[in-house]
Amino acid sequence: MRFEVLILGNSSATPMYDRHPTSQVVNFNEQLFLIDCGEGTQMQLSRYGIKSNKINHIFISHLHGDHYLGLVGLLSSMHLIGRKSDLHLYGPKGLDEILAVQFKYSETLLRYDLIFHETSADEPQVIFENRTIKVSTFPLTHRIPCTGFRFDEGQRSRHLLVEDIEEAGIPVAYYQLLKNGVDYVREDGQVFSASDYTLPAPLSRSYVYCSDTIRTANYLPYIQHATLIYHESTFLHEMVDRAKETFHTTALEAAEIAKESHADKLLLGHYSARYKDLQPLLLEAQSVFPKAMLSQEGKWFSV
Amino acid sequence: MRFEVLILGNSSATPMYDRHPTSQVVNFNEQLFLIDCGEGTQMQLSRYGIKSNKINHIFISHLHGDHYLGLVGLLSSMHLIGRKSDLHLYGPKGLDEILAVQFKYSETLLRYDLIFHETSADEPQVIFENRTIKVSTFPLTHRIPCTGFRFDEGQRSRHLLVEDIEEAGIPVAYYQLLKNGVDYVREDGQVFSASDYTLPAPLSRSYVYCSDTIRTANYLPYIQHATLIYHESTFLHEMVDRAKETFHTTALEAAEIAKESHADKLLLGHYSARYKDLQPLLLEAQSVFPKAMLSQEGKWFSV
Repeated sequence: MRFEVLILGNSSATPMYDRHPTSQVVNFNEQLFLIDCGEGTQMQLSRYGIKSNKINHIFISHLHGDHYLGLVGLLSSMHLIGRKSDLHLYGPKGLDEILAVQFKYSETLLRYDLIFHETSADEPQVIFENRTIKVSTFPLTHRIPCTGFRFDEGQRSRHLLVEDIEEAGIPVAYYQLLKNGVDYVREDGQVFSASDYTLPAPLSRSYVYCSDTIRTANYLPYIQHATLIYHESTFLHEMVDRAKETFHTTALEAAEIAKESHADKLLLGHYSARYKDLQPLLLEAQSVFPKAMLSQEGKWFSV
Repeated sequence: MRFEVLILGNSSATPMYDRHPTSQVVNFNEQLFLIDCGEGTQMQLSRYGIKSNKINHIFISHLHGDHYLGLVGLLSSMHLIGRKSDLHLYGPKGLDEILAVQFKYSETLLRYDLIFHETSADEPQVIFENRTIKVSTFPLTHRIPCTGFRFDEGQRSRHLLVEDIEEAGIPVAYYQLLKNGVDYVREDGQVFSASDYTLPAPLSRSYVYCSDTIRTANYLPYIQHATLIYHESTFLHEMVDRAKETFHTTALEAAEIAKESHADKLLLGHYSARYKDLQPLLLEAQSVFPKAMLSQEGKWFSV
């Protein structure tokens, strides 16, 4: 089952070197989720071949412009190209007011239903859940209210031992039940135990998105054991004072957080405009957490 | 004296084919004016080597997103890179409210003074004037209130006939007066007439920007005799019904307007996403007005 993240923008507030403000697409089994929507997101979606109308859920972490200024343009283009299906938007208090005033003056009446779900930066919340995936917020600590997002895959299926199953003559109709761990009981009463004919389900995967934040231990409980954690890493650690002053994180701190939260892999991003060459950020993070990677625009990362 | 227009975006509302929403820079003798500010304008400025802090005047034609959505990002980046000098913003009623609500939620307090000048789409107005250039609005007819902008160069200087002047022994200190048409009177009372020692000043140039509009004769009086006229040409004339429905113009109509207003040159733009190849728009316009040109992003056009 596909679970990947496409980076649309990895720049911090002042875009430079053809890096764009923050936005990402999560593809979970062909369900597309957009995380943050910096200026230019609609152009980046188009550049990387993502049809915006396949996105039904948009999550905004906070109301600094580099995380949401592409939203009105994207919502308007969805309208212009004929979107009909509901769009769910999750974000902080005020985002609905920001949209409303702009749609008022442009006299835009969207052809589809835009359903706004206000998030809270006070406590973690489950904001979306279906049979296969659950999305939660957790509080971060930034200059203004800000949340991270956590995507947790649902229970995965057990793996069928097909040769053994065929030899035992178990009908195909019972395969899904076996995958779900249900034993097969034949008409004559003989029990074929799911545990004998399947291997345990692989661990469920999780993607954690840590938007702008100062380094604190406050959010550690909510980000434990991520398969992939994205964490902002605006600065090199030599600028840790500047990071604290601006409520941001250094690459070293991002790596320490990945380590302390027992993540498998770490993705860096939200790079300051002062860094043309990003390798020093990577090397700094890898010194603490070897499975650190640089996010790159246009690249898919597996969860 | 330099008088040129740089195209930053020439797309209509849905950006496609790496074309960007509307924005242009007018350079008049190293004074930079920004006209409209679609999403991505700050990235386009950076791509084409324009320092945003050299811009002191921004003109917004109307409040459809493809003409102003880059504004908050640009103003915020100016703030972040340390702008101190005043910035004058000219645009329709409501633009200040749109900015205020966004700066409220992002808790942005700009380090420079942003001075908002509300424009009116009811009648033409002079909105900026100094010794060398005058900028006026004029009403267009679009779905929502919309103005065009006209840039008129001030009176130009007469051209000195240097050899004759030197032969006559006119002191250098009087050259500027001669250029302004003032005669030189020597101490002994002899008059050296400016018209004998200079050639007439070249005609003053003008740039006319016609933003989104349906074709009407209403604005013809305000756009007469432009050296260069930019006119939106969203559609080919085969789609004239669609143009009327959406309050836009076809390439043929743009050319007719250029002809009827006695423009020297015509620049086309605001291309619909349905046209990948723009040559048909150019050919259609040139069939009526041979000095029509396609606007191209990143290209400077002389006025």
